[in-house]
Amino acid sequence: MKLLRFGAAGSEKPGLLAKDGTIRDLSGVVSDITPETLKNGAIDAIAKVDPASLPVVPAGTRLGPVVNGTRNFIAVGLNYVDHAHETNMPIPAEPILFNKAPNCIVGPNDNVTIPKGSEKTDWEVELAIVIGKTASYVSEADAINYVAGYAVCHDVSERAFQTERGGQWMKGKGSPTFGPLGPYLVTPDEVADIQNLDMYLDLNGQRVQTGNTKTMIFGVAHLVSYISQFLQLDPGDVITTGTPPGVGMGMKPPRFLKAGDKVRLGIQGLGDQEQEFVAYKG
Amino acid sequence: MKLLRFGAAGSEKPGLLAKDGTIRDLSGVVSDITPETLKNGAIDAIAKVDPASLPVVPAGTRLGPVVNGTRNFIAVGLNYVDHAHETNMPIPAEPILFNKAPNCIVGPNDNVTIPKGSEKTDWEVELAIVIGKTASYVSEADAINYVAGYAVCHDVSERAFQTERGGQWMKGKGSPTFGPLGPYLVTPDEVADIQNLDMYLDLNGQRVQTGNTKTMIFGVAHLVSYISQFLQLDPGDVITTGTPPGVGMGMKPPRFLKAGDKVRLGIQGLGDQEQEFVAYKG
Repeated sequence: MKLLRFGAAGSEKPGLLAKDGTIRDLSGVVSDITPETLKNGAIDAIAKVDPASLPVVPAGTRLGPVVNGTRNFIAVGLNYVDHAHETNMPIPAEPILFNKAPNCIVGPNDNVTIPKGSEKTDWEVELAIVIGKTASYVSEADAINYVAGYAVCHDVSERAFQTERGGQWMKGKGSPTFGPLGPYLVTPDEVADIQNLDMYLDLNGQRVQTGNTKTMIFGVAHLVSYISQFLQLDPGDVITTGTPPGVGMGMKPPRFLKAGDKVRLGIQGLGDQEQEFVAYKG
Repeated sequence: MKLLRFGAAGSEKPGLLAKDGTIRDLSGVVSDITPETLKNGAIDAIAKVDPASLPVVPAGTRLGPVVNGTRNFIAVGLNYVDHAHETNMPIPAEPILFNKAPNCIVGPNDNVTIPKGSEKTDWEVELAIVIGKTASYVSEADAINYVAGYAVCHDVSERAFQTERGGQWMKGKGSPTFGPLGPYLVTPDEVADIQNLDMYLDLNGQRVQTGNTKTMIFGVAHLVSYISQFLQLDPGDVITTGTPPGVGMGMKPPRFLKAGDKVRLGIQGLGDQEQEFVAYKG
């Protein structure tokens, strides 16, 4: 299934993308897609419904983030060999983890605000995992059973805040709107091989990132298992799994985003996002 | 006011500590202390009530964490000069920030579980700030207006996970039960000078940490303002502000926690916590 949330920001309803390409309204089946409803079996309930029986949502309706109320938004750094190379960083021996602020999550096509004082806002197409069940000390073999689904995530990053302001990376990762998530929450049964999906990102129509999840250093199952050794993953938590080569800071000279830039990104089978970057207005 | 939450884990009710030392039940006034109720003026509503008119809660009732549903749990590293010295780290030029998993927050006197495979679980008494209003780009002068209150926080830390497993500190900071928070959420009007509070931590009855919030490198108002430049702080978010000297990894030789250890910690005017450390049982 391709689940989604549609409607105005803050009052989205749950929906799904039907095989005929229409969006269908799931609000008669589940109240929303949240940590609580995921925990209480929302996905199983949705799976029992015939999409053709559901109301059609008008085309062009805004899409929201695929899950509402995420508490832990975890990101993996330098998880593609070629991206580690372009940033002049060593290949990590273990996954590098940091946090994005959960309230930076927005819809896949919402505007992204360049923070006040930012001169190094950068792009990163990523595969995100949405957790479906509480996971603590799970094995790699069992890890996928804790996944509700996958989504495209734009891990927008401010490089000066991330690396020039003292120590830990989270300062450059959580500015409001820095986490577009969607369009769809794609359940694992719909993905033939999560470690073989093409991904891309275009800046103003020019291809800048090209990659495939097969070049991840640490794959999805490993990451879920690994993280669950350090903390408990709860339903609705999101893990964004790192970006392939082609980010702005790796260009010679480096290139960063400015107001008016348009970014389009996507992952094979998971859909596409498109954002306009806008200046902060105080 | 000294607000609190009482009752069994997961079904706590809101309460307050009355001047006569009794705990009073606030569940007729507000449903709980959460991001949502803080946003909707819970503290103002509670301030209008005469505590003497509220039902008395039986003495000995378990206390829960002072806020329910925190989404962003931010920690400040190396924020006391002497603690930076004992860890052989330079004095930071700017606050060092990292995240604790929000679901590691527990009650002030709950058992703390030593993670599977841990050999370096350490203690840290800290002053925590609970955010009361959405804060984005707030000035230092205005910062305290965004604070709902203060609480004692035990920033339990696994040093090997934090510093020997690749990069960022959050791996050693978010294991389940690593964030005892309470007993009270003390509103700012009750604290004469937040930058002059004694703090202590005893291990098995022996004083190991002694400090005062006046030796913080970056004070409360600075931290709220500073963090709000990088991300939006929401009601219910928690900032724990660093620990004074005396942690186990600073001892010669280093000393770490083992099952059966009892830790008592507190901050002047904010109350005390007491935890037993227990082994992980899979």
